[in-house]
Amino acid sequence: MTWEILNVIGTIAFAVSGALVAIEEDYDLLGVFVLGLTTAFGGGLVRNLLIGIPVENVWKQDYLFAIAFVVITIVFILPNKWIGRWKKCVVFFDAIGLAAFAIQGANYAVSIKAPLIVVIIAATMTGAGGGMIRDVFAGRKPMIFRSEIYALWAALAGLSIGLGWISGPLSTFVLLTAIVLFRVLAVYFKWNLPQKKRSRKQL
Amino acid sequence: MTWEILNVIGTIAFAVSGALVAIEEDYDLLGVFVLGLTTAFGGGLVRNLLIGIPVENVWKQDYLFAIAFVVITIVFILPNKWIGRWKKCVVFFDAIGLAAFAIQGANYAVSIKAPLIVVIIAATMTGAGGGMIRDVFAGRKPMIFRSEIYALWAALAGLSIGLGWISGPLSTFVLLTAIVLFRVLAVYFKWNLPQKKRSRKQL
Amino acid sequence: MTWEILNVIGTIAFAVSGALVAIEEDYDLLGVFVLGLTTAFGGGLVRNLLIGIPVENVWKQDYLFAIAFVVITIVFILPNKWIGRWKKCVVFFDAIGLAAFAIQGANYAVSIKAPLIVVIIAATMTGAGGGMIRDVFAGRKPMIFRSEIYALWAALAGLSIGLGWISGPLSTFVLLTAIVLFRVLAVYFKWNLPQKKRSRKQL
Repeated sequence: MTWEILNVIGTIAFAVSGALVAIEEDYDLLGVFVLGLTTAFGGGLVRNLLIGIPVENVWKQDYLFAIAFVVITIVFILPNKWIGRWKKCVVFFDAIGLAAFAIQGANYAVSIKAPLIVVIIAATMTGAGGGMIRDVFAGRKPMIFRSEIYALWAALAGLSIGLGWISGPLSTFVLLTAIVLFRVLAVYFKWNLPQKKRSRKQL
Repeated sequence: MTWEILNVIGTIAFAVSGALVAIEEDYDLLGVFVLGLTTAFGGGLVRNLLIGIPVENVWKQDYLFAIAFVVITIVFILPNKWIGRWKKCVVFFDAIGLAAFAIQGANYAVSIKAPLIVVIIAATMTGAGGGMIRDVFAGRKPMIFRSEIYALWAALAGLSIGLGWISGPLSTFVLLTAIVLFRVLAVYFKWNLPQKKRSRKQL
Repeated sequence: MTWEILNVIGTIAFAVSGALVAIEEDYDLLGVFVLGLTTAFGGGLVRNLLIGIPVENVWKQDYLFAIAFVVITIVFILPNKWIGRWKKCVVFFDAIGLAAFAIQGANYAVSIKAPLIVVIIAATMTGAGGGMIRDVFAGRKPMIFRSEIYALWAALAGLSIGLGWISGPLSTFVLLTAIVLFRVLAVYFKWNLPQKKRSRKQL
């Protein structure tokens, strides 16, 4: 049940973020649909691969495709000034997708009794897949490698699930909200992690 | 039988398109072979993943590797003026690969009794995989996201198969030819789909 | 046994090469870990996909994650002048990963009695996966498509294994050392393969 809801939330969020990136890049009508669907189901594909769900199961989720279609259509026909107003739109929806799929990855790792470090990495990689696919296809450097702390929030989700702090739908929902909040705050306040100091091109 | 022929056609076409892109990018001898093989079998890998065929089965298709090798060798030794004459070569072979794998994706979706929208998306994503891998590895923006209508033809293949209009090898062959024709015409006449109007970088 | 050792060697080598590329690109602390882990386990994921090992098995290799973590941490805290001194560091560790995974791919292909050409291609593609993922995510053109002979060494590993010249851990280790040596020499002396002569952008 929780799995199913996270799946729907993550898929919708990645679909919206893909469609918004496509509009930013001036793709045409079909390009918006293709990048939206690729991001949503590409993210799910990476998650399925990493946690051993047969990839072709994706085609049995009819309702998810229908929802993604409707959502992308809404993004496409929304007046520009609405989208312009939510300057952080892509970041926001990407954060939701990241959080939803990261929690699924961590839950899977816990279910096979993986040690803590594996739970953390599973959360990070499962969550980051959709955004990576979107950014690579749009010819951008994946968000995860740009500054403003991205993977850390997924890793913290993995940590809290791995330590057994999260159980049941309610605390899962609180965790999801917290990850999205911290990610958006990190972008808003331009939080950054330490870098290894070196002059570029020195190596 | 039809599956096998489409597989051979799609693999050869993607091998040629990969080799041509590698020559365009001034890759060396091995680069041409590697991008040709990566495009051909990467496209098949994406298709296998999406429709649940074990990926490692690819290694059992000895004859396909042999054919791909011969085809890439021919592309490499062909005189430049021949290649120069067929300016649309990459587009043409890419279109054949797109059509062949799109039909396989749609047929699979129909075989599991997926609803129409799923058949259409399966056709598009299965068909687009090879070209996406080629373009990402060559550092280009994937064709599917550039203008001149790309995914639409794969989607229409999915629609016609999903509606049951296509049955038997003959109508499949007609459909394949029609997709390639429309795709080439779209590039030739620079057909475009509507874009969401907005000034770039406004978001 | 040999499999396990090659797995450890390849994973460590790709982890180091990913971390070094991330430092070169001025990624932050987490970026270095994410690109290191993505390269190491992405390479293993491609290998597992291609030779039919369930991808989710990756999460059962606890010790590998621990080793990769330690190794990336060491790379991060090493003084810059050390890294600067080994100018070919990325090339060197990438070559080790390439060689280790190429040998695994070739051994698998031999084990299913694939013909020689398939063994050669399996070696090349299995070996090249990690580096391709690293370079695509770092926004670089994959090493395999730049000059100075890359895929050839993996292909030769495939050839020697396919011909049955390599048996037992000792000769495998000699082969691995030879591939790394030739790759590094190729970069050092700027060996190149023939290119198809044509003026760029002519096509």
